[in-house]
Amino acid sequence: MRLKHVKKAEEKINHSTYLIKEPQQYKGNFKSLFQNNNEIHIEIGTGKGLFLLQMAKTYPNINFIGIEKYDSVIVRAIEKIEENPLDNLRFIRMDATNIEEVFDHEINTIYLNFSDPWPKDRHEKRRLTSSVFLKKYDTIFKDKKHIIMKTDNRHLFEYSTISFVKNDYKIDDISLDLHKEQTENIQTEYEIKFSNLGYPIYKIEVSK
Amino acid sequence: MRLKHVKKAEEKINHSTYLIKEPQQYKGNFKSLFQNNNEIHIEIGTGKGLFLLQMAKTYPNINFIGIEKYDSVIVRAIEKIEENPLDNLRFIRMDATNIEEVFDHEINTIYLNFSDPWPKDRHEKRRLTSSVFLKKYDTIFKDKKHIIMKTDNRHLFEYSTISFVKNDYKIDDISLDLHKEQTENIQTEYEIKFSNLGYPIYKIEVSK
Repeated sequence: MRLKHVKKAEEKINHSTYLIKEPQQYKGNFKSLFQNNNEIHIEIGTGKGLFLLQMAKTYPNINFIGIEKYDSVIVRAIEKIEENPLDNLRFIRMDATNIEEVFDHEINTIYLNFSDPWPKDRHEKRRLTSSVFLKKYDTIFKDKKHIIMKTDNRHLFEYSTISFVKNDYKIDDISLDLHKEQTENIQTEYEIKFSNLGYPIYKIEVSK
Repeated sequence: MRLKHVKKAEEKINHSTYLIKEPQQYKGNFKSLFQNNNEIHIEIGTGKGLFLLQMAKTYPNINFIGIEKYDSVIVRAIEKIEENPLDNLRFIRMDATNIEEVFDHEINTIYLNFSDPWPKDRHEKRRLTSSVFLKKYDTIFKDKKHIIMKTDNRHLFEYSTISFVKNDYKIDDISLDLHKEQTENIQTEYEIKFSNLGYPIYKIEVSK
């Protein structure tokens, strides 16, 4: 059953024009894919896509790309966009470790929402905010580097804040209990579920 | 009654050898006061002194100075140290805005514990972590600049984190729920009271 589901998901994804099948061929030229010069924002670990679907609807003059490594979740994002087409949103199925092979100085903002905390010390390098990843991002940002991160994981947030600053980012904004703020906030699936339980959501916005 | 109490407090403070009456006379030479070359750590807004009294007992090879502007609270610190004398702890009664007139490149660490949050925007400059104060501290630190801050006030913590980084500090350590960590922590009076209510205590340690 499980295998059958995955196979179906894979088929559905591969037939969609919203999935960029060979992203490397656009490297340095993703604007040709969108056929405009608008900013390009990416979300790494886009899951079922709720956040980017809402962002793309809210900000039609920004192009969005969602990156996700698992067929079984990205298929939900593809299904939703097929139902409600959006010109300014595409998806890539890949592991983020290869991100610098796909983009070249063309990204304006990276969103990291509820990333895997990889709590064990020996897995530090796998965290999407480790120095290893921040150095990869340096090569994909257009000019100003801009990252917006949300998480419910206190340790990942503490770690990431230190890591951003160590890598010369300044902090534009920080919130230690996002849902108590009066600011606009487009939520992820995970965020809705988690904040309903009463736990704080942490957010940090950095740039350099 | 109130006036009588304050007068009594003032008398008690002024008779104590633990109060440095004319701190300016030691400017640049506080080591002569302690008669050794040990590090000098200061707490700004020392209140009733519980934190520094414990720190001074725990770290006999560090000299501590507590700064407090109100007679009515510093008298409690003076009473306690008179009962349990400590060679490595002194107090100064003054407003921290004058701090650069008292110290000159001789402080190793500044502690800011549960400082007044001054929540109104127009009072930003009064916050002990505003750029105004951080620039004053630059002139009192010996070489490496090192600040350790604790607070229960989320907005002050968010503001301070941004301010430290804007002023080129790196973050050595950060905790968004100190009492859930397994680390050693000497508490202030305020901290004991507040954390007993179940609220998180925030801590950040920065240096440059």
